[in-house]
Amino acid sequence: MADSKYRAAGVDIDAAADALEQVKPAIRATHTSSVLADVGSFGGLFALDGLDKDSVLVASMDGVGTKVKLAADMGRWRGIGFDIVNHCVNDILVQNARPLFFMDYVASSALDPQQVAEVILGVAEACRSCGCALLGGETAEMPGVYVEGAFDVVGAIVGSVERGAMLPKKDAMQSGDVLFGLPSSGPHTNGYSLIRRVISGKDLRQTIEGGVTLGDALLAPHRSYTQQIDALQRAGVSLLGLSHITGGGLVDNIPRVLPDGLRAVVTPGSWRRPEVFRLLVEWASMTDAEAYRVFNMGIGMVLIVPAGAEAQVAAVLPDAVRIGVLAPRTVNGASVTFE
Amino acid sequence: MADSKYRAAGVDIDAAADALEQVKPAIRATHTSSVLADVGSFGGLFALDGLDKDSVLVASMDGVGTKVKLAADMGRWRGIGFDIVNHCVNDILVQNARPLFFMDYVASSALDPQQVAEVILGVAEACRSCGCALLGGETAEMPGVYVEGAFDVVGAIVGSVERGAMLPKKDAMQSGDVLFGLPSSGPHTNGYSLIRRVISGKDLRQTIEGGVTLGDALLAPHRSYTQQIDALQRAGVSLLGLSHITGGGLVDNIPRVLPDGLRAVVTPGSWRRPEVFRLLVEWASMTDAEAYRVFNMGIGMVLIVPAGAEAQVAAVLPDAVRIGVLAPRTVNGASVTFE
Repeated sequence: MADSKYRAAGVDIDAAADALEQVKPAIRATHTSSVLADVGSFGGLFALDGLDKDSVLVASMDGVGTKVKLAADMGRWRGIGFDIVNHCVNDILVQNARPLFFMDYVASSALDPQQVAEVILGVAEACRSCGCALLGGETAEMPGVYVEGAFDVVGAIVGSVERGAMLPKKDAMQSGDVLFGLPSSGPHTNGYSLIRRVISGKDLRQTIEGGVTLGDALLAPHRSYTQQIDALQRAGVSLLGLSHITGGGLVDNIPRVLPDGLRAVVTPGSWRRPEVFRLLVEWASMTDAEAYRVFNMGIGMVLIVPAGAEAQVAAVLPDAVRIGVLAPRTVNGASVTFE
Repeated sequence: MADSKYRAAGVDIDAAADALEQVKPAIRATHTSSVLADVGSFGGLFALDGLDKDSVLVASMDGVGTKVKLAADMGRWRGIGFDIVNHCVNDILVQNARPLFFMDYVASSALDPQQVAEVILGVAEACRSCGCALLGGETAEMPGVYVEGAFDVVGAIVGSVERGAMLPKKDAMQSGDVLFGLPSSGPHTNGYSLIRRVISGKDLRQTIEGGVTLGDALLAPHRSYTQQIDALQRAGVSLLGLSHITGGGLVDNIPRVLPDGLRAVVTPGSWRRPEVFRLLVEWASMTDAEAYRVFNMGIGMVLIVPAGAEAQVAAVLPDAVRIGVLAPRTVNGASVTFE
C-alpha cells in the first residue's frame, strides 16, 4: 500500500520494520524458557511459573541522558544499548533483584534503520549476558520533537527478588560497617550535559591515561555489577546494602540505603580517581563538592558489609576498594561526609 | 550544595525534584496493596502473592507519537498522561491481560516542573481509574536532544492474564464469526505527524461536528476499553480476539489476531466516520486506502465473537457496531478486505 502522504510527513513505517527484521535473531537469543510469545506480538508474554510464590517484582525505567547525544555525534550506537540495559540492571540490583525481562524504546526525528539496529543489538547483547529476556520494544519517528540527528533511548526492566532477601537491610546496619566501592568504567550515564559542554573544542582522539582516547573513555559502556554481587553471595558474604552511583553521585545515592542514625564517612583518597574525571573536573573548573554530586568519580557501585566480612570481600572481589565506614549521625547532620 | 556548573549546562536536578513532590499524593493513590515500596526508591516493588501461579505477565512499552508536539503547542499536558496509559492498557488488553503496574518517562530539553506535573497527574489519574499502580518513573532534561519546547512521554506497562484465558483464540475462529468495533475518541495516538502537517494554518478553535473545537477533537485522550471488555466477560460472552487499532489502522492490526486461513471482511459504511477524520482525509487529499492505514477512522478496538454472540454483544455494549465478518482467505489473498 502506498503511504506516501505519511512518509512525506516524516514517518517511514517500513524503515522501522526493516530495523526490526535485522535484529530479530539477536532478540530471540535472549528469550529464556519463560518467554511465551515471539517478537512482534502486541505485548510480550512472560510466564511466572519459574518464580517462587514469595517473589517480589522489582521494576525500573530510565534513559541514559545526553550520552546519547555524544554517541550520535561520534556515530557510535551499540554501546548505548549496553548503557541502558546495564544502568537498569544495576538499579534493581541494589534491591538484590535479578533481571527477568527488559523493554526498550528508541526515538528520533527520523529513524536510520542501521543506527536503530546497532542500538538494539547492543541492548540484546547486554540482556543476553545477564540472562534477561528482551521482551519488547518500540521505535518511534518524531519529526519536530527531536533535534535532527539526535535520538533518545529509554529502557524498562522487571526483575525479581525473594522477599526475605531484599536489600537494603537498614535495621542490620551499624557503626563500623564497611563501605566498598566497585570501579566504574567511566562516567557511565551521568553528567553528560556538562561533559558535552566542557569537551567542546577538545580533540576526542587525544590519548589519555591507559592509552585510550578521550572519546573512548567518555563512551565506555555502563558497567553491570551483577556477576560480582553474585560471586559475593555465592561466597556467603552478608551484604547489608548496595548503592548504584548515578545522578547525584556518592553524595545523594549512598544515603538512600542508610538508616536515619548512620552516616557514611567516605575517604576520597582511598581510590584512584580515573584520569577522565581529573580532566573533566579541571576543564569544568568545578569544586570537588560539585564533582562528587555530578559524577561517580570512579566508583559505580557501593557495597555495605559488616566489618567482619572485609577480608572475604577483598578475596572474592580483587578490584573492590575499601572507601569508608558507617559512623553515627547526629540529628540534621550530613549523611555522607568526606574525611 | 551548589550545583551551578551543572545547571549552567542545562540540567536542573531540583526542578525534577519539585515536580515529583507535587505529584506524590496522586502517585500514592494508585498504589494497590501489592505495592511494597514508597515513591522514590531505586526500583518499584510489586508483590506477586496476589497472582495465580498459572498467571502470565504481559508487558508493553510505547510512546504516544507526535501528539506530544501538538499538546505542547497548545499548552495542554494532562491529556497526554491519559493517552500514554490508555494506549498501553489497550495494548495488553488484546491478550486479555489486566494492568498490574505502569512506569513513565518524561523528557524534554528543559523541564518545566508544572508541565511535568500535569503529565504525571494525567498518568496517575488514568492508572487509578483502571486499578493500575504507578510504580515508578523518570524525568530527564536533555538539552540538545529535544527541540526547544517539545517533550516526549514513554510508558511501560506490566499486566497479567491466566494462561488459559489468553487471547486471541485463533484455533477457535471460523468463517462467519462477527467483528464488532468500539468507537475511538478521535485519532487516539496515531497519525499525528501527518495531522500536524495538514492542520498547519487551520484554526484549531473552529467548531466541528458535535460542537467541539478542532483542537479539542485532536487532543481527545486515547480511550481505554477495559471496562467494556470486563462487562462483556461478566455477561459470559465468549471473546475470540481483540485488536487494538493503532499505527497501521484496521488494515495492519486486525490480521495480527487472525489465523492463516481467514480474512476480515470489513464494511466501511457500517459505522459513522467521525467528522474529524472526514476533515483530515480531505485536507490531506488522501485516498481511503491510505487513510485506513494511518488512522483508526473511528474504530479504536475490534472484537471478534462467534455469530451466536452477536445479540448479547449488542445488548451489553450499546455503542459497539457490527463492522464485518470473518471469511475464508485464499493463499496470498488479502487478510483484510473492505466490501
